[in-house]
Amino acid sequence: MLMELFDRLSLIPQGAAGPCVRETLRTLGETVPIRQREYPTGTACYDWTVPQEWSVRQAYILDGQGRRLVDYRDHPLHLVERTVPIRKVVSREELLRHLHTRPDLPDSIPYVSALGGEDWGFCLEHRRLAEFTEDLYEVVIDAELAEGTMTIGEGFIQGKTDREILLSANIWPSSLAVSGLSGPIVQTMIYRKLLERTNLKYSYRFLYLPETIGSILYLSRHGEHLRSRMAAGYVVACVGHGESYTYKKSRRGHSLADKAALHILKQSGVPYRVVDWSPIGGDERHYGSQAFDLPVGSLMRTAYADYPEYRTSLDNRTLISEVAMRQTVDLYLDVLMTIESNERYQAMQVHGQPKLDPKALYPFGGAPRIEALERLTAVYSYLLAFSDGTHDVIDIADKLNLTGKDIAEACSALEREGLLRPVSDAAERAGVL
Amino acid sequence: MLMELFDRLSLIPQGAAGPCVRETLRTLGETVPIRQREYPTGTACYDWTVPQEWSVRQAYILDGQGRRLVDYRDHPLHLVERTVPIRKVVSREELLRHLHTRPDLPDSIPYVSALGGEDWGFCLEHRRLAEFTEDLYEVVIDAELAEGTMTIGEGFIQGKTDREILLSANIWPSSLAVSGLSGPIVQTMIYRKLLERTNLKYSYRFLYLPETIGSILYLSRHGEHLRSRMAAGYVVACVGHGESYTYKKSRRGHSLADKAALHILKQSGVPYRVVDWSPIGGDERHYGSQAFDLPVGSLMRTAYADYPEYRTSLDNRTLISEVAMRQTVDLYLDVLMTIESNERYQAMQVHGQPKLDPKALYPFGGAPRIEALERLTAVYSYLLAFSDGTHDVIDIADKLNLTGKDIAEACSALEREGLLRPVSDAAERAGVL
Amino acid sequence: MLMELFDRLSLIPQGAAGPCVRETLRTLGETVPIRQREYPTGTACYDWTVPQEWSVRQAYILDGQGRRLVDYRDHPLHLVERTVPIRKVVSREELLRHLHTRPDLPDSIPYVSALGGEDWGFCLEHRRLAEFTEDLYEVVIDAELAEGTMTIGEGFIQGKTDREILLSANIWPSSLAVSGLSGPIVQTMIYRKLLERTNLKYSYRFLYLPETIGSILYLSRHGEHLRSRMAAGYVVACVGHGESYTYKKSRRGHSLADKAALHILKQSGVPYRVVDWSPIGGDERHYGSQAFDLPVGSLMRTAYADYPEYRTSLDNRTLISEVAMRQTVDLYLDVLMTIESNERYQAMQVHGQPKLDPKALYPFGGAPRIEALERLTAVYSYLLAFSDGTHDVIDIADKLNLTGKDIAEACSALEREGLLRPVSDAAERAGVL
Repeated sequence: MLMELFDRLSLIPQGAAGPCVRETLRTLGETVPIRQREYPTGTACYDWTVPQEWSVRQAYILDGQGRRLVDYRDHPLHLVERTVPIRKVVSREELLRHLHTRPDLPDSIPYVSALGGEDWGFCLEHRRLAEFTEDLYEVVIDAELAEGTMTIGEGFIQGKTDREILLSANIWPSSLAVSGLSGPIVQTMIYRKLLERTNLKYSYRFLYLPETIGSILYLSRHGEHLRSRMAAGYVVACVGHGESYTYKKSRRGHSLADKAALHILKQSGVPYRVVDWSPIGGDERHYGSQAFDLPVGSLMRTAYADYPEYRTSLDNRTLISEVAMRQTVDLYLDVLMTIESNERYQAMQVHGQPKLDPKALYPFGGAPRIEALERLTAVYSYLLAFSDGTHDVIDIADKLNLTGKDIAEACSALEREGLLRPVSDAAERAGVL
Repeated sequence: MLMELFDRLSLIPQGAAGPCVRETLRTLGETVPIRQREYPTGTACYDWTVPQEWSVRQAYILDGQGRRLVDYRDHPLHLVERTVPIRKVVSREELLRHLHTRPDLPDSIPYVSALGGEDWGFCLEHRRLAEFTEDLYEVVIDAELAEGTMTIGEGFIQGKTDREILLSANIWPSSLAVSGLSGPIVQTMIYRKLLERTNLKYSYRFLYLPETIGSILYLSRHGEHLRSRMAAGYVVACVGHGESYTYKKSRRGHSLADKAALHILKQSGVPYRVVDWSPIGGDERHYGSQAFDLPVGSLMRTAYADYPEYRTSLDNRTLISEVAMRQTVDLYLDVLMTIESNERYQAMQVHGQPKLDPKALYPFGGAPRIEALERLTAVYSYLLAFSDGTHDVIDIADKLNLTGKDIAEACSALEREGLLRPVSDAAERAGVL
Repeated sequence: MLMELFDRLSLIPQGAAGPCVRETLRTLGETVPIRQREYPTGTACYDWTVPQEWSVRQAYILDGQGRRLVDYRDHPLHLVERTVPIRKVVSREELLRHLHTRPDLPDSIPYVSALGGEDWGFCLEHRRLAEFTEDLYEVVIDAELAEGTMTIGEGFIQGKTDREILLSANIWPSSLAVSGLSGPIVQTMIYRKLLERTNLKYSYRFLYLPETIGSILYLSRHGEHLRSRMAAGYVVACVGHGESYTYKKSRRGHSLADKAALHILKQSGVPYRVVDWSPIGGDERHYGSQAFDLPVGSLMRTAYADYPEYRTSLDNRTLISEVAMRQTVDLYLDVLMTIESNERYQAMQVHGQPKLDPKALYPFGGAPRIEALERLTAVYSYLLAFSDGTHDVIDIADKLNLTGKDIAEACSALEREGLLRPVSDAAERAGVL
């Protein structure tokens, strides 16, 4: 079903940023409620400005016989992003300066944006450079940069408190699979599953953003709100490919987001690696920028630079799978439920090991089995011994080699019997902190 | 000789807790002075109460032919601890719910206490379950729970200061070897060897306690005394079995007890591993509880959960050895002597490396050999360079890959020559801290 | 060329400390300006005193046939350092007590100084002990201890600030190669190369000292100056032998000296190991003594105790090489230039990732290549993201797996464009701190 959603989203024409983004959000909005916010061209945010909308009608390179050697209709990556319109006969030498290839991946079309100040350019397979043997070519780029709007999608679930958890996915550019559509698709499934839960302690915010400019714009308008409310956040990207996970920590490196994600990765037994925050990657670059320093990490499968097809036409449907995306949805939900059930308790009896009332705490039918008794006694003992105001449930579960979810029921039993009391006060629980 | 003591203690009848503990203490008291403290049934300590004394005259299961299928006289572990008296004909189905076995160790009788609220039960070898083929059985448990006393044994050596070092062993239940009698036997040998020393800087307290209830009761009466006086402490348990050591750290994890034990383990070259404090194990659970947080670790050989026979009838004489217990006594003495000789010094000449007076500091007959000279010079140099008020003798010995004991003589020589002066002030040395 | 300098210095007679040191300094002074400071015998510094000058005219052991079995003329190490004059017939037994050998290196003459309070002694090859078969020998030591001076050499380069970097080499005793002359030779080459640079931010001080007494005397006179001015320092010793490096940290272990040296060692890919500061080694012992605690490390190749020939006649010309010394000079210069270009910046735009102006920051001719663009963008992004007042250029370069030198140009570009501003204030930059 996730792959079907991928296929539907893939059919949306890539021609113009504005309509493409809006159609993507409308399609995802069939599954979960998404509000669209519009920002007109020229809207300022820090040193950035919402750009003109870029749209392409056609773009190609003609040889002397009028054959289209490179054609935008064949693949949207053939054109350098934000290339200006042009119609011009150029020498072979001049043309070659505007052609981008990846010699290490000769069958791929690289993804290039006009970062270097270049005005126009084409991208193509490296092995095809040999076809350019003539002296003159005609370049036709029928593109337009025009006033318009940039669209940001936003979803929200109100929990029992106003403390928020953020999930963020990028929806533009969307022609890639691993580093493109897998993110919003997985995020949408997490969103849908959370909608089915009642009794959520935290509120959840879901952002669907054009990469970089979208998150910077959102931060310029809502950064202070996020700073005051956010308990944890994750950028959902690169979630469809590979067998192992990569967790990229938030800038501060020891936030609740990091703690919960690392706890679940460790206890769930999946292969994973951990990398520090860096300003290379997805929108966590901006959430973690100095002025905001938000506790936003990114739980990925194979990450950006770790698969050779990254930023080429080979990052496509064949790399991602239904299973990989579903497993990632489940892992994210485990992380979020671990945050939901996390609490810092104080044990009420601290002189020696407390006497555990067998009737209230060991709800076994008939004579209990030795191992079951001992296992449950260990959980109770750890919870009571380490609930000293400094260790939270995740810490204690880690010591037991269990997940916070595994011991949530034991926490409830001890709280019910008056042996544990949450440390967090009313204010913190109301989300004010 | 330690095994002879083990054999004598093993002969003490296990029938009733009170007489059994008192006889055990009397026997150990032939080697070292032990004072017996009595606490009557019903004495309250936090949420615990000194229980009634439990004694068993006989207990067995009869089949239709009047054969005793399971008999307490064969092994005290056949009866679940603190089982109530009963005489009753039961169906096979009901009986099986009250039988405990270890399928993973089919030839062992498990040790079970009535933690789960169960009123009665028998323990037996798993392979013998096949013998229970009849429909009805008669269960006879002629036991008694009656008012009495719980006994705690205590020894003490007064040192030059009132700062105390605690050793603690459990003497009940005592039918096991590794997790049972090896502890009090080894502790008694350490106690005897310390009695031979003069000039001890610290005072030593030795506790012999029924597990859990004994230490919690002692803490309820003397916990504040221990908190104000204790420099270090160790639970002496699991000290007779296996080739390698396990050191379980005190709750705080970096106490003098931990530092000295880890120093000796590292420098002595024995195989060992280190585990954090946890509320599973011996009485260190209670010494390390939140209200007391005493610096009590446990230096063990093969520890509780690390040998399969733990908590079964297979934890018996065949697992422990004279050699293992003696080596552990020696290692404990090394640890204690390291604490005795530990000191924080301040070097008196701190500008460049001090000039070492050959006559006073190099007491060699004739021309000294180069290596001996260099080795001693290194010890002096390290002591003078790092005695800066933050490093103690253990720290400096560690840097030299020696033990604190190895460099004690060099410390004395430098102190005698006025090159080092102890930092600890009079108050601290008097044990007040 | 460095080996030629070694050969010239090796020819200086070792007879008397004073003239030997002065001639060594004069020879090195042909390459770089070195000022000689003289301190008369008896000058006090802490618990040390400038010793009398020791000179030897001749020294030998005669057998019954008048053959010289051991002769100072053959090798200066044959005589224990600072041996007193003597002329005496001794028994074989007495003689043997005054002979030093290295049984583990039977072909070497050990280096022995009269530390143990011994008045006289000879050193020789262990295998030659078998030659001493007669009953009586005549010992002739025609040596003199007389008033004189101890000489210290000093060089200085004034930089833009008064903050100083110290290099220190020992020039006495000088008869060894690895632990002897390699140090002052390499230091002199570093000094010469720094003289060629203009625009140095730091001032540089170069000390050439008799080991131990020289540095302690210098500290007694100039220690406070060094404490207030020194940014970093290195003892240049053991720099001619072996394929891998050893870095010995300064006492505090995390000084700028340590940070820069470890950064270059790590990023340059050479094999190396790191050891903590200790009071065994070279003059870093005294710079790191408690009263001064100067940030002085030592970047060595094979270090003191790590080659068997240390402190014997086998530590000679055959162990060291021109290539090893030159590589070490280069590595030291990399370290010093890293310190020169190190700075703590604050990014000026901290809300999200700053927009990078392609024209000013990407000075590529023609269309830039993708990889070059991305590489430079990564450097800019890291510099802007982590220039938060806590990370310096070394920290950021480390995150990029580059050296501080590699990214110096990018720093300048960002500073020029107003995107970075140095945090250090005017006072610190003036060297006052």
